[in-house]
Amino acid sequence: MQKFFEIEKTSESKARAGVINTDHGQIQTPIFMPVGTVASVKTVHQRELKEDIKAQIILGNTYHLMLRPTMDIMEKAAGLHQFMNWDLPILTDSGGYQVFSLAKSRKITEEGVKFKSHIDGSLHFMSPEVSMQIQRQIGADIFMAFDECIAYPSDYNAVKTSMELTHRWLKRCITWTEENKELYGHKQRLFPIVQGSCYSDLRKISAEVISEAGAEGNAIGGLSVGEPEPEMYRITNEVTDILPTDKPRYLMGVGTPWNILESIGFGVDMMDCVMPTRNARNAMLFTWQGVMNMKNERWKEDFSPLDEFGTSFVDSAYSKAYVRHLFVSKEYLAKQIASIHNLAFYLDLVKVAREHIVAGDFYQWKDSIIPQLKTRL
Amino acid sequence: MQKFFEIEKTSESKARAGVINTDHGQIQTPIFMPVGTVASVKTVHQRELKEDIKAQIILGNTYHLMLRPTMDIMEKAAGLHQFMNWDLPILTDSGGYQVFSLAKSRKITEEGVKFKSHIDGSLHFMSPEVSMQIQRQIGADIFMAFDECIAYPSDYNAVKTSMELTHRWLKRCITWTEENKELYGHKQRLFPIVQGSCYSDLRKISAEVISEAGAEGNAIGGLSVGEPEPEMYRITNEVTDILPTDKPRYLMGVGTPWNILESIGFGVDMMDCVMPTRNARNAMLFTWQGVMNMKNERWKEDFSPLDEFGTSFVDSAYSKAYVRHLFVSKEYLAKQIASIHNLAFYLDLVKVAREHIVAGDFYQWKDSIIPQLKTRL
Repeated sequence: MQKFFEIEKTSESKARAGVINTDHGQIQTPIFMPVGTVASVKTVHQRELKEDIKAQIILGNTYHLMLRPTMDIMEKAAGLHQFMNWDLPILTDSGGYQVFSLAKSRKITEEGVKFKSHIDGSLHFMSPEVSMQIQRQIGADIFMAFDECIAYPSDYNAVKTSMELTHRWLKRCITWTEENKELYGHKQRLFPIVQGSCYSDLRKISAEVISEAGAEGNAIGGLSVGEPEPEMYRITNEVTDILPTDKPRYLMGVGTPWNILESIGFGVDMMDCVMPTRNARNAMLFTWQGVMNMKNERWKEDFSPLDEFGTSFVDSAYSKAYVRHLFVSKEYLAKQIASIHNLAFYLDLVKVAREHIVAGDFYQWKDSIIPQLKTRL
Repeated sequence: MQKFFEIEKTSESKARAGVINTDHGQIQTPIFMPVGTVASVKTVHQRELKEDIKAQIILGNTYHLMLRPTMDIMEKAAGLHQFMNWDLPILTDSGGYQVFSLAKSRKITEEGVKFKSHIDGSLHFMSPEVSMQIQRQIGADIFMAFDECIAYPSDYNAVKTSMELTHRWLKRCITWTEENKELYGHKQRLFPIVQGSCYSDLRKISAEVISEAGAEGNAIGGLSVGEPEPEMYRITNEVTDILPTDKPRYLMGVGTPWNILESIGFGVDMMDCVMPTRNARNAMLFTWQGVMNMKNERWKEDFSPLDEFGTSFVDSAYSKAYVRHLFVSKEYLAKQIASIHNLAFYLDLVKVAREHIVAGDFYQWKDSIIPQLKTRL
């Protein structure tokens, strides 16, 4: 039988090139996963996601999907793959992060979380069991344990208490998952999540507890929530030192193109972030040459292709001056073009990173390219 | 040399199937022209417009384009085709309609119109000569005479005075056009516009004056501006009785799918309207089965394809329940899907109409299909 995760090549240090095998196809790692919050990657057709952006796996949000379209519809549709017509792998978060950050008000107990919907204020309850059930109904290929993602900064004892709750909740997630079958005939894998904020000793404990759970992959949560960049790097590096090397590691909610590369350098295999799409809608484009603000006067008469090193059709089909005009005129197409560009760039970034891992010169390449990526054009 | 307009088949009555030859390719008539107001058909990529919607010609708006991106940029880009990367035919309106309906305030004299931009209130002046010059800078394959489009209803004398001004302005348009060369090496054709509101005798005079100008095509303006539908049909029918049969006839700003078919029945060859895109953004879909409001509860659990008789990829790629979910969740993709669907439907509608003209059973077909098209699903 095919293994879930196979490492093809380990670089000079921790970075590695691998392959994840799911019932919806193969994922080349390291990989970036576009975020499709409410069953849509904003402004992007599924066809474009597959053919132009070359996404290999996308992310859905449990919290958003439970509110709309609701799980009644989701199960009648036979899951998210069917509902949105996406036949490649999907990963869902557990809803924890959104419940804690988006829901209007919330009350946490050992049992779970009561919260009010950010849409209409209606009351809901989520627990490890509820989150597992919803993620079964969504039918993601990879689904996440229900954790508490504590705000940054929080004091040591609060982080410790929260982390321990997350660990107890993990046991309930595993129990529920073992006792309840998959719904749609394809395999679903549960990833537990390391917490512990920026406290090294708590992160160490959490990484050990999570590793011992023996899951097929592991995630690092509670980062990219406002902590300084060096802190994020330090904790990621410490946690990947502990997490098993033979299982994929998913760093949640990260990040900029340079965050992506540094994280790969620490042995991270999977990442997701709303940044490429959200910033695109605000006219910010990431490229191999640096960061472009498309509303800038600078592009007004620049009729050269949007991105001569870009891999998607928008990069050659449209000029910088045209895309600037669309942003200035508040045309929908502006956001669409920018979103496709940014996502295609992120997918190209991890593809090229993978090539350098395989070639054995990843770190040298990463350090040489990052200053360029950060340049404001 | 290839003729600009060739009639392939005239139906039992006035409807005809023809071909318009431009330097950017051939147009099969009758044709519907999607509206690309500010150098973009809203929410639709040019690639989709060409490959999925199968648009043969699109429309640009002189008024909007003069304000953004401005003619300085347009001429540096070498025209609208280059600027927006659209290599099929383009038609531009004269700016008259928008100046009268959209500009913040305006003052009409014999010389032209002073108006304030709807965007920033800045002062502008437009005259027959200015409109011609701008349309040369845009570089449309077909461009329109600068006319006054009077509000409906207006009294007889006001309409007569306005119509006579439009006729005098036409002479200035023709003079300017004859004295000034095309800019980008492709042929541009001027279409004059019949006015006269809903007064048959004024329409008759205007249609005769316009016919005598000897242009390569003629347009009917001042309809679809609030008059009852039977009035629109009556005037269209009266005017097409007078306009030369060997030149294409363009009915401006029309309309619903049934308006399109009735107009074709009166011998109209070209139409444009924002309805398919604007209504799409408000969740209204036109189909061969009737009109669908995609926010309707009815589609909540309907997982069948968006439109089983639809011709574009969205019709089979997405379900009704999914598109409803996207509208309810206010996702951008909802507007994108609906716009592609509606435009593809309009293009399919005129294509099938053309086939029935060629087959010789257009009127019977039209009368049998219109009640279905009007049905609210």
